[in-house]
Amino acid sequence: MALLLEGTSLARKVREELREQISSIKSVDPYFNVSLKIIQVGGREDSNVYVRMKTRAANEAGISCEHVNFPEDITEYDLLLAIKGFNEDPTVHGIIVQLPLPAHINEQIITEAVAPEKDVDGFCETNLGKLTKREGQPLFTACTPKGIMCILKHYGINVQGKHAVVIGRSNIVGRPMSILLEKANATVTLCHSKTESIADIVRTADIVVAAIGIPHFVKADWLKKGVVAIDVGINSIPDATKKSGYRLTGDIDFENAKEVASAITPVPGSVGPMTVAMLLQNVVESAVRFRKMSRKRKPTLL
Amino acid sequence: MALLLEGTSLARKVREELREQISSIKSVDPYFNVSLKIIQVGGREDSNVYVRMKTRAANEAGISCEHVNFPEDITEYDLLLAIKGFNEDPTVHGIIVQLPLPAHINEQIITEAVAPEKDVDGFCETNLGKLTKREGQPLFTACTPKGIMCILKHYGINVQGKHAVVIGRSNIVGRPMSILLEKANATVTLCHSKTESIADIVRTADIVVAAIGIPHFVKADWLKKGVVAIDVGINSIPDATKKSGYRLTGDIDFENAKEVASAITPVPGSVGPMTVAMLLQNVVESAVRFRKMSRKRKPTLL
Ligand SMILES: NC(=O)C1=CN([C@@H]2O[C@H](COP(=O)(O)OP(=O)(O)OC[C@H]3O[C@@H](n4cnc5c(N)ncnc54)[C@H](OP(=O)(O)O)[C@@H]3O)[C@@H](O)[C@H]2O)C=CC1
Ligand SMILES: NC(=O)C1=CN([C@@H]2O[C@H](COP(=O)(O)OP(=O)(O)OC[C@H]3O[C@@H](n4cnc5c(N)ncnc54)[C@H](OP(=O)(O)O)[C@@H]3O)[C@@H](O)[C@H]2O)C=CC1
Repeated sequence: MALLLEGTSLARKVREELREQISSIKSVDPYFNVSLKIIQVGGREDSNVYVRMKTRAANEAGISCEHVNFPEDITEYDLLLAIKGFNEDPTVHGIIVQLPLPAHINEQIITEAVAPEKDVDGFCETNLGKLTKREGQPLFTACTPKGIMCILKHYGINVQGKHAVVIGRSNIVGRPMSILLEKANATVTLCHSKTESIADIVRTADIVVAAIGIPHFVKADWLKKGVVAIDVGINSIPDATKKSGYRLTGDIDFENAKEVASAITPVPGSVGPMTVAMLLQNVVESAVRFRKMSRKRKPTLL
Repeated sequence: MALLLEGTSLARKVREELREQISSIKSVDPYFNVSLKIIQVGGREDSNVYVRMKTRAANEAGISCEHVNFPEDITEYDLLLAIKGFNEDPTVHGIIVQLPLPAHINEQIITEAVAPEKDVDGFCETNLGKLTKREGQPLFTACTPKGIMCILKHYGINVQGKHAVVIGRSNIVGRPMSILLEKANATVTLCHSKTESIADIVRTADIVVAAIGIPHFVKADWLKKGVVAIDVGINSIPDATKKSGYRLTGDIDFENAKEVASAITPVPGSVGPMTVAMLLQNVVESAVRFRKMSRKRKPTLL
């Protein structure tokens, strides 16, 4: 039975550290306030759940978090105006736009409209470019891959020289994940829907990260004995034993995979909470950076 | 014996098309002039050779190319000033800084100083970020990987679904190469100096791109029968039979590899000339883009 790479308590620890950091700065600077805006368009049920989770976690950590909900039929222009307002508001440190957006709004245009220095999701080209370039220092790194690197580090899992197979190449998970693992000196293979013989490729992996969005896509017999298995997927499947009538499950066949892997993340309870914790960490880093910059600008004579 | 993926004549064809494109624009707009600045610091012999090659090719294609040579001991500040001058000069369409730079100059700062819309090498974070992001449209793509994609296309080599192994992760070759292949729907593994069991990984490849800088690093017995082998390496090794006392060779053991591969690039004569041709293509694209933008800006009443 594999070691469970648990994220809930690790995420709690991160949130507590952030709360302490915020209150220690507030004790010397009572005007210090960390502020996050979460923009949502429409009312998709899954988005509602994510926004609620983020808002609650932010508030618990001492971050002022506003959920800004626009109607489903808002124009792209009006959404851009709202983002521009937050970009220019010096009291705002982080802006996230909950994806997916309705079809009439161009996701690329919207994610690029967020100022790179407030792009706490790490989705914009400037931050992705800094991540990709060897010497680049992104202002923010995408929260899910950042959280996974944290989990690996916390459990002392060595990545250097290992063969990591990442399944999925989205801007928010797979792609930045492959770069972070490579920068930590893993040898990375990036798989996607056009990959041929995917089972054979996964079988060569020392570390597998599954970010596809298909329940139990990765089978236990695709896994090398002793593999480290990271499951990003959050899929809701029917379950008559639950009051809600469904339950959440990952992209890896957990029940069978845990007998083959040396370590595995449960779904829920690992990558999900760490993603939220990294978002809060990015927002606090941003507020601290803005505070430093505004103090630098003060004339030294005063 | 493998098919030779020849680049010299393909590069000549690209250069001829560029010359025709330039003269056809000049025939309607006599003021149209395509201008490239090549900045070199010091006088490294290998850099001299590359700069000479680029300058000659540019001039042959009808591009005004100036080789701007600064002394080895120029300060970073003065180099930045020179780049700023070219950034602001509307008659300049492309700026490249010949690498490597002397140790006292920060390569990251210098490559980031070139305006993204004149960064015809495609090295800056803005262009790398646009390349990395799924929907991103880089203004310029790094010339060597772009040239390799051209060669593959020219010879009708299908990339989608194939397993491509890229060895080397530099900003200018390996890293952008891995992204271009992945965007063309290959499954890509990126290897580097920390990769363990590299021979075994290369053995699983349908396409290998070697960009390491070590002569004959990739052995024939690392190759799967029928592999497509792309050799980026340019290494000079002693050769008593040559007047100069040396000859150029690649990162793949060509003589033995050509018996295993289905297709292979010779060194020299393939990736090298295509790299130069893609640089010229980027410069012409830039001049055409600047021309379009300046015409757009003209008041419509005139
Ligand atoms: N735990 C957390 O906090 C988070 C969880 N998630 C969850 O992670 C999963 C992935 O999310 P996201 O990255 O946004 O998803 P996307 O839908 O953006 O990307 C899915 C990726 O999976 C690939 N894919 C689809 N089908 C196959 C297949 N048959 N074989 C191989 N690859 C395939 C796609 O390939 P192609 O590119 O070729 O189409 C694509 O790259 C979802 O379940 C999501 O809910 C997401 C974000 C955060
Ligand atoms: N044909 C053309 O037009 C061009 C040719 N070149 C040639 O291509 C070659 C590579 O150039 P460039 O990308 O600039 O080189 P760099 O020196 O910047 O990068 C070399 C890469 O090779 C990796 N590497 C080094 N040793 C090993 C090893 N033992 N096993 C596996 N990987 C290794 C390094 O890994 P790590 O990152 O871990 O250090 C690094 O990523 C050179 O020969 C250069 O002359 C370059 C540009 C254009």
